[in-house]
Amino acid sequence: LVARMREFGTTIFAEMSALAVRTGSINLGQGFPDTDGPAAMLEHAVSAIRDGFNQYPPGPGVPELRQAVSEHRKAHYGLDYDPDGEVLVTVGATEAVAAAILALCEPGDEVIAFEPYYDSYAASAALAGAVLRPVTLRPVEGRFAFDPAELRAAAGPRTRAILVNSPHNPTGTVFTRAELEEIALLCQERDLIAVTDEVYEHLTFDGVEHIPLATLPGMRDRTVMISSAGKTFSVTGWKTGWICAPPEFVRAVQTVKQFLTFTAAAPWQLAVSYGLRHELDWISSLRAGLESKRDRLMTGLSAAGFEVYRPAGTYFVQTDIRPLGFTDGLALTRELPSLAGVVAIPTQVFYAHPERGSHFVRFAFCKKDEVIDEAVSRLTRLG
Amino acid sequence: LVARMREFGTTIFAEMSALAVRTGSINLGQGFPDTDGPAAMLEHAVSAIRDGFNQYPPGPGVPELRQAVSEHRKAHYGLDYDPDGEVLVTVGATEAVAAAILALCEPGDEVIAFEPYYDSYAASAALAGAVLRPVTLRPVEGRFAFDPAELRAAAGPRTRAILVNSPHNPTGTVFTRAELEEIALLCQERDLIAVTDEVYEHLTFDGVEHIPLATLPGMRDRTVMISSAGKTFSVTGWKTGWICAPPEFVRAVQTVKQFLTFTAAAPWQLAVSYGLRHELDWISSLRAGLESKRDRLMTGLSAAGFEVYRPAGTYFVQTDIRPLGFTDGLALTRELPSLAGVVAIPTQVFYAHPERGSHFVRFAFCKKDEVIDEAVSRLTRLG
Ligand SMILES: CSCCC(=O)C(=O)O
Ligand SMILES: CSCCC(=O)C(=O)O
Repeated sequence: LVARMREFGTTIFAEMSALAVRTGSINLGQGFPDTDGPAAMLEHAVSAIRDGFNQYPPGPGVPELRQAVSEHRKAHYGLDYDPDGEVLVTVGATEAVAAAILALCEPGDEVIAFEPYYDSYAASAALAGAVLRPVTLRPVEGRFAFDPAELRAAAGPRTRAILVNSPHNPTGTVFTRAELEEIALLCQERDLIAVTDEVYEHLTFDGVEHIPLATLPGMRDRTVMISSAGKTFSVTGWKTGWICAPPEFVRAVQTVKQFLTFTAAAPWQLAVSYGLRHELDWISSLRAGLESKRDRLMTGLSAAGFEVYRPAGTYFVQTDIRPLGFTDGLALTRELPSLAGVVAIPTQVFYAHPERGSHFVRFAFCKKDEVIDEAVSRLTRLG
Repeated sequence: LVARMREFGTTIFAEMSALAVRTGSINLGQGFPDTDGPAAMLEHAVSAIRDGFNQYPPGPGVPELRQAVSEHRKAHYGLDYDPDGEVLVTVGATEAVAAAILALCEPGDEVIAFEPYYDSYAASAALAGAVLRPVTLRPVEGRFAFDPAELRAAAGPRTRAILVNSPHNPTGTVFTRAELEEIALLCQERDLIAVTDEVYEHLTFDGVEHIPLATLPGMRDRTVMISSAGKTFSVTGWKTGWICAPPEFVRAVQTVKQFLTFTAAAPWQLAVSYGLRHELDWISSLRAGLESKRDRLMTGLSAAGFEVYRPAGTYFVQTDIRPLGFTDGLALTRELPSLAGVVAIPTQVFYAHPERGSHFVRFAFCKKDEVIDEAVSRLTRLG
């Protein structure tokens, strides 16, 4: 393994999901639902397979999906993206992030990301030979937020891009307009590119609405906006995502993307274009269902003795394990299958300095109510 | 776009397939069949979707597929690979190549590849900051072959790996045991890693059999063996491939791969595991059918005035356009839709020095007989 990747091992998701399978534990670790997306959308994938859409699709993606993404961005956010040249289909958001960083960052460039961050951000930066500069989100009155001064201090002469993940995994924070304005200002002052990971865009609660950074004045033309079908339609195993961006960014990202995977699989693209056009009600019920699951899991984890942070979005609850007498989340989550038959994610692996997050553990609530209840009842034994 | 990728534009496949769609031409460019893979395998994908296999599969791949790949390697080639730790599922062979090069090559390392080469090889090397050293295949009595002295001369102190694509796209050469022995000897003398792209392993003709480099003495433990379902089962749009390699290589490649796309889509993996176990007869008929299509296209292209090289494998025929009075294959293929309503691939884009291959043009024969006949009849107008 090359030097620049040696700090990375197996992703925590693969490790913990394998642990769940091996021990027969309830998996509240990796974020995937236990109920599949809209039946009619699945049937569109079936039709695509039977109707002969099993060969290479066009490089930028199937036209129907690029068109549907473009219409969706317009209808939801008032954003205009030309389906020819400003939309690119990728193998999920992970490939979109990797291709964007590899396309835009020279060795030695710096990329700002809000810590804790999805582990692929640091790995993508490392693959590009770039340096990740973390800005830490810390609990302020029960919500994870950044210090604007810390954000400004993170930007230097080599800063090229900022990765903005909102709704934010793993903290559940949905950036406010004021927070996004801080980011936008910095991008404009320092001429930064924003790469936004918005895969949880529809999964927000308590009436909080997701605001794309690209909708802020001056930001559309410096933003690579990323989303995907996996979280929106509960088909994480389909690996179908997309970017929307000005043509020069799309060309750059496509240049790299085409050599990572060539194209994204064809049948999903047709099915997802149907989903984006006809399954918005399904998304609303997913969101409502998740809000009640969030409350269910929060109540249970609080009763079990965790300190619980209320997420405004995503399908993760961040907890502090110290009230239970634990201090090392990585050690605890490795023991949790034997202690309680439950798998969770140690948030510390998403920090540049793990000690900053060693007392945090993340639980997913995109699971059937009875699964959440059983997990909670098992975790109650911990206290 | 970062400096190291600036020499790369849109892949020639995307460009030429888009040209075919735009002009309504017959597409004998990009290598994808116009008939889908085995119906029962497609139905296994349908069942996987309906039966709830739509979420993230395990990081290394679905166990059934890793098992089926392992059994297939054993049965076909006598090669032993442990499905747990020596097999990794990827998003097609393209991702496997990219992840292998990114995982194994430090900036400044050199990678040998046989020229003309599939364009992602050079791009993967560039992404890694590595340098591609071409060894040119030249026609010798109608077959493209390398000069062993040139191969040896290409290896230097910084050479880390050699990319070996056999059956070879775009020339159709299937390396002989003697040729593979030259390569194996060099790998052992210079301690090189072999990365083998064997996606056309089953598509060989005239009784020629594909020999995996890993079967040569001493080679298994220094080889990352790559293949995929796309070409074997005529589902190029499924983007499902795999590597077989010793555990330390698999771990290294997986470390990178997990941050490129996280996992490969789940339903295809179940369907392909069925295919590898139960559709070997289907592969035999594909191969027989392709052999007759090859002959059909060769006969037609010869009659149309091309000099034609007989491929022992793949589904491509390499031609020399000079007998028709043309000298620049890139210019010709860009004009071919208006001249003849046909799209082909200019082989020169697969050369480090395009002028070495400017007079070669590649045609694909993985098409229905009537499509081949119509293309040939149109091309006959050229002469
Ligand atoms: C590859 S897992 C992607 C993100 C996610 O689902 C998680 O954080 O659990
Ligand atoms: C992405 S195209 C992959 C290889 C191939 O099919 C071709 O050479 O045409």
